[in-house]
Amino acid sequence: MGLSLDAEQLDRYSRHIIMDEIGPEGQAAVLDSRVLVVGAGGLGAPVLQYLAAAGVGTLGIADDDVVERSNLQRQVIHGNDDVGRPKVDSAAEFINNQNPDVDVESYETRVTQDNVESLIEEYDIVVDASDNFPTRFLLNDACMLANIPLSHGAVYKFEGQATTLTGGPCYRCLFPEAPPEGTIPNCAEAGVLGVLPGTIGAIQATEVLKLILDEGDTLEGRLLAYDASGMSFDFVPIAPNPACPVCSDQAKIESVADGEYAGACTLGD
Amino acid sequence: MGLSLDAEQLDRYSRHIIMDEIGPEGQAAVLDSRVLVVGAGGLGAPVLQYLAAAGVGTLGIADDDVVERSNLQRQVIHGNDDVGRPKVDSAAEFINNQNPDVDVESYETRVTQDNVESLIEEYDIVVDASDNFPTRFLLNDACMLANIPLSHGAVYKFEGQATTLTGGPCYRCLFPEAPPEGTIPNCAEAGVLGVLPGTIGAIQATEVLKLILDEGDTLEGRLLAYDASGMSFDFVPIAPNPACPVCSDQAKIESVADGEYAGACTLGD
Repeated sequence: MGLSLDAEQLDRYSRHIIMDEIGPEGQAAVLDSRVLVVGAGGLGAPVLQYLAAAGVGTLGIADDDVVERSNLQRQVIHGNDDVGRPKVDSAAEFINNQNPDVDVESYETRVTQDNVESLIEEYDIVVDASDNFPTRFLLNDACMLANIPLSHGAVYKFEGQATTLTGGPCYRCLFPEAPPEGTIPNCAEAGVLGVLPGTIGAIQATEVLKLILDEGDTLEGRLLAYDASGMSFDFVPIAPNPACPVCSDQAKIESVADGEYAGACTLGD
Repeated sequence: MGLSLDAEQLDRYSRHIIMDEIGPEGQAAVLDSRVLVVGAGGLGAPVLQYLAAAGVGTLGIADDDVVERSNLQRQVIHGNDDVGRPKVDSAAEFINNQNPDVDVESYETRVTQDNVESLIEEYDIVVDASDNFPTRFLLNDACMLANIPLSHGAVYKFEGQATTLTGGPCYRCLFPEAPPEGTIPNCAEAGVLGVLPGTIGAIQATEVLKLILDEGDTLEGRLLAYDASGMSFDFVPIAPNPACPVCSDQAKIESVADGEYAGACTLGD
């Protein structure tokens, strides 16, 4: 596989290729990989930047939102002149300027029960960079049922979390049900430190690269809880829940058609 | 101070302003702040992106390097067409496209014993986003002597570290002397996971914002050691060294003219 790298690629990715843990074979695997990022907002921005820089061969971007001025405080792939543009367009332009090795596939759409299975099935790994519980549960269920690894990330004020889900335990082992709509404030209502999704998104991109490279220990089975104010990092073990509605023997959700995901959408935090 | 925010700023920074820990006063303090970032490379890219997005009023950028193709795997403020351009120019263009509230002051120069004092004295906070020990020690000494807070970050293969230095303990309390030249390989020789400086740089930007806002607990007195492969975060306490050559009662370095910094430069990792 390493022989497939051309001279420009050997130069561009030299800091990866020189490492024993990656090498030309690892870099070729990155170039062959396909990753879907759901949400081109605060978390999606660093995920897309760093996966594009690393040379992920195909980056899917799903988001149905347009850039707003209040996004610019944290969504660093969108510039001042992008206000009003679809985020998938602004994100695709950023990536194309960054790395011509990356093919971008844009989906300017909400992710719903109707389209999630066909969206994810073309990808090796999915990144949840959305900002709401219905989408979070929908992606968990769809990815677990389709056996596609999922990187989870979320941010709130000064606090962020991330984990990596590869079949079980899954997100519903931790949280069986989404909280009722309106009980948890979103970024607009609660606020978010702008650089916080930068940290969590970089960690999500790291996890994706380790999955592609089959290198190191990912966050499988543990939830990283980061407090940017106290600058602390804690890990919450995630054990398989024997009553999990998705990944246990007692699973009741055998298709996303069985789940309830009121208002699922792709707004990136 | 909050009254000085105009309507566009109230919109742009609304996710900060809505938080009790920041509010309009905190955002106004960010807009009034001046931060010097030494190195516009792997660490400098996320530091500059997120400090610009947050509205740091004046961002100084010191770097004497030009963009190389092998930088693009991690230095996400530089695009494919920027290869061959001075990094300070590419970085300034990125920031200007991102946030018109930010004034950029570019220094296309090596940071040396001769110019470091005049460079840092105009700034409230300095970020060490360089990639070499001589610059790291020079910035430590100059900032400690001038009583200017310094954010330290460094990356190596899968491992990164960060701390915040505000007068003592300082970096020389941990490491009194730089290692002999040539004993520690740099990024080109050892390699670096591209997204690693993204994580460490985001943490450095977080520390800077907390210093400006006087919010939360920074990394003062502790060195964060991050292993991206194992996804672990450890803290090494930094105690004041009673024999520290810079910040102790026995200090021998009373001016950077007293130190030795062979080859100090500003190449961003």
